[in-house]
Amino acid sequence: MTQTHDLVLRHGGALDAAIARFGGVRADWLDLSTGINPLPPSLPPVPADAWTRLPERAAEDRLIAAARSAYGAGKEAAIVAGPGSQALISNLPFCLPPSKIAILSPTYSEHGLAFAAAGHDVLRISPLDALPGDAATVVVVNPNNPDGRHIAPADLLSLAERLAGRGGLLVVDEAFVDAEPHWSLAASAGMPGLLIHRSFGKVYGLAGLRLGFALTTCELAGRLSERLGPWAVSGPALAIGTAILEDGGLRKRLSRQLNANADRLKSLLQTAGLEIVGRTALFVTIRHANAYRLHEALCGHHILTRPFDHSPDWLRFGLPGAAAEWDRLEEALAKILRLG
Amino acid sequence: MTQTHDLVLRHGGALDAAIARFGGVRADWLDLSTGINPLPPSLPPVPADAWTRLPERAAEDRLIAAARSAYGAGKEAAIVAGPGSQALISNLPFCLPPSKIAILSPTYSEHGLAFAAAGHDVLRISPLDALPGDAATVVVVNPNNPDGRHIAPADLLSLAERLAGRGGLLVVDEAFVDAEPHWSLAASAGMPGLLIHRSFGKVYGLAGLRLGFALTTCELAGRLSERLGPWAVSGPALAIGTAILEDGGLRKRLSRQLNANADRLKSLLQTAGLEIVGRTALFVTIRHANAYRLHEALCGHHILTRPFDHSPDWLRFGLPGAAAEWDRLEEALAKILRLG
Repeated sequence: MTQTHDLVLRHGGALDAAIARFGGVRADWLDLSTGINPLPPSLPPVPADAWTRLPERAAEDRLIAAARSAYGAGKEAAIVAGPGSQALISNLPFCLPPSKIAILSPTYSEHGLAFAAAGHDVLRISPLDALPGDAATVVVVNPNNPDGRHIAPADLLSLAERLAGRGGLLVVDEAFVDAEPHWSLAASAGMPGLLIHRSFGKVYGLAGLRLGFALTTCELAGRLSERLGPWAVSGPALAIGTAILEDGGLRKRLSRQLNANADRLKSLLQTAGLEIVGRTALFVTIRHANAYRLHEALCGHHILTRPFDHSPDWLRFGLPGAAAEWDRLEEALAKILRLG
Repeated sequence: MTQTHDLVLRHGGALDAAIARFGGVRADWLDLSTGINPLPPSLPPVPADAWTRLPERAAEDRLIAAARSAYGAGKEAAIVAGPGSQALISNLPFCLPPSKIAILSPTYSEHGLAFAAAGHDVLRISPLDALPGDAATVVVVNPNNPDGRHIAPADLLSLAERLAGRGGLLVVDEAFVDAEPHWSLAASAGMPGLLIHRSFGKVYGLAGLRLGFALTTCELAGRLSERLGPWAVSGPALAIGTAILEDGGLRKRLSRQLNANADRLKSLLQTAGLEIVGRTALFVTIRHANAYRLHEALCGHHILTRPFDHSPDWLRFGLPGAAAEWDRLEEALAKILRLG
């Protein structure tokens, strides 16, 4: 559907659109337009039942237990699994009574779109201190996409407490926190006034699988589950998600590798003369007077990055994977910025 | 989450719950509680990209084209793919202004639950002639689950036209129509006042994959896509769904096989002395004075069937798969009904 395509285009991952404009075939292109780990772990086996049968309670229970342990959430936290954190983001606003929603901006645009679609009054604020007294729900992406801003967990917890006191909710989207778990509020999940979104596909490089989680109170989790309906998560996502989340060693190795690579990417971009806006373990965002022209020049080298309408001087770079991809990015930037 | 479990339990597929009560291990049980093809085709290969990358436009376009051709829909039809037809059923009511909804009952319970959750006024009617003049939306499952009732496409088309004339909508859930395509309205999809739900997982025996479609007008499809949000269908579901829907020969073979097996199941149940309520190509429903006791007696043989709260004298049997499963069902029924 046309609508879906527009949605896909507005979020990067739109390699086909770039190919249509700048030529080449998929294998030619280096896609750095998403914040997805380019080096996924090898896929655990998927039992035949996972494809053929409707997902059952025991499989979902095991996935939720694995997520609880991996994210360090306590037993007070109720955890809902969905087909991608996007599905949870889209459904959450329909679980809350229409009210004033403050979104710390600029940030991932789907939060605002989803709350507006459900009839809420959406207000974009910056900084967090600018929060109006009558906002019932506050949305913060932490670390933030695309600027990599990190907010101290203690500050967010005290905000959640304040919001809970007036019947409100703090929504913290932790899509990019996995490799920096000390920034996560997961250990406090279950407290009134807090809902945390977690993404599985980004850190594990399995975005096509569609798996994400919401950690919150029992009561709100119940409403969210009811909205998703039965069998929301596919059998393969249950099987693969469980096996990977149960592997604590893998989690530690991946975190080290992603942080090292994000640091390397940051250095590479700085060495090329670019000013850093911020970084997470999965992307680095730079500032450039004409970031869109830099984006197009990189497209000329069949390297896809992510520009932003809301911040025309920003450009986001996902992590390269294989050694040759690092060299290619470095060489393309050297050529472009020498000319520019 | 507790809510999700309740949802799973209320629809069968709850083999674990039966095991907890009647003992045995999964491999011991013959699960006939769902209307899912027990003999799925072999899985086509899933490219690595389908797991790792966000699903792109070209892959979704190809799936939609395959669905259009497989279902015999014209180019006027707009087709939305979702992660299971359940997700489309859950989201549709949020795309329509709150109004009076008439559901031809008894039928698949999720339609009523979904419309009620979105604030519509849900009315259960039977027969279709009992439709009140002020109902804006009518829901019909055709062929119906669980009684196998078939309504002539011409009658439904004239109802859709009447509803369209007053700005209403006929929702036809064709989850069980695949092996009897002459009962489908897909060729008329795109006309005002009609939305058709199609399930992929039932006929192809891949319920864990989570894939379904809605065929309707461009305008309503746009709203439904917007509600689902981007990347609703997983990469593996796009790849596998496309390959299977493009295989017309497979579709014909499966239809013949499923119809032959449903006829065989009907004969087997009649021979055991049971009265037939109805059949589709994926299940047969019988009437028995104490259907729940028959259900429990079959559980004693580790055979799971599907009873219904709304019709305590009905019991639904899905198709056995391997030859030994047919023998086992026949022998268990002979023992139970001789004693009963």
